[in-house]
Amino acid sequence: MELYFCGSIRGGRDDASLYAELIEELSTHGTVLTEHVGTAEPEEDLADGEIHDRDVEWLRAADAVVAEVTTPSLGVGYELGRAVAAGTPTLALYRPTGEHELSAMIRGAGDIEVVEYTEIAVAADAMADFLS
Amino acid sequence: MELYFCGSIRGGRDDASLYAELIEELSTHGTVLTEHVGTAEPEEDLADGEIHDRDVEWLRAADAVVAEVTTPSLGVGYELGRAVAAGTPTLALYRPTGEHELSAMIRGAGDIEVVEYTEIAVAADAMADFLS
Repeated sequence: MELYFCGSIRGGRDDASLYAELIEELSTHGTVLTEHVGTAEPEEDLADGEIHDRDVEWLRAADAVVAEVTTPSLGVGYELGRAVAAGTPTLALYRPTGEHELSAMIRGAGDIEVVEYTEIAVAADAMADFLS
Repeated sequence: MELYFCGSIRGGRDDASLYAELIEELSTHGTVLTEHVGTAEPEEDLADGEIHDRDVEWLRAADAVVAEVTTPSLGVGYELGRAVAAGTPTLALYRPTGEHELSAMIRGAGDIEVVEYTEIAVAADAMADFLS
């Protein structure tokens, strides 16, 4: 199974280590195409057009999409919009930290499964359920 | 001409008055379907699913999409992803404030025209050029 993980990059890296934990968990279920989202220096030496086109190609190839949506991010939102438009099964994991309410466009999207969590074990169970 | 304006709502309202100015400018070119994005209390009394479905319906109806992308926002990203997937002409207006670099998924999207500005007159000219 090919899996696409979405997390904030330029929108803010506060949750980068959490993304790494979720990606590690996710990789027990299949190949995570976007492993770099959890690394310390995710940007690589690519032009923005190359990043976009590679990521859209991976999105097209993916059997499922899992997004961490606690930090507002244009890139994560864009990926979710493209995934929904393509009909790819999509899970959004949200930590209610009190800082940002989750976007109505994400929580209200009938084609996105939204799960709230605070402990990583809950997110891990949600990913396992979603992918089974 | 029916126009869809995107601005951050739950991602942060720092630019709300700027959105109002852009919407006023945009409304000289056609009907802005999403005028509420510039008002003080944009959320209305709708469930998230109703907001999502109404906005996606408006996106489908729109002849063009204009987004202000300085504040990272899942909703704005989602709308841009849906607009690109639908083939709707899309303009993204970005103020380089130094706080957040613009997402590679937005700046690198060949189907999104990105214009940087600091003065509203520059954004107004960009909208006029884009819509003509």
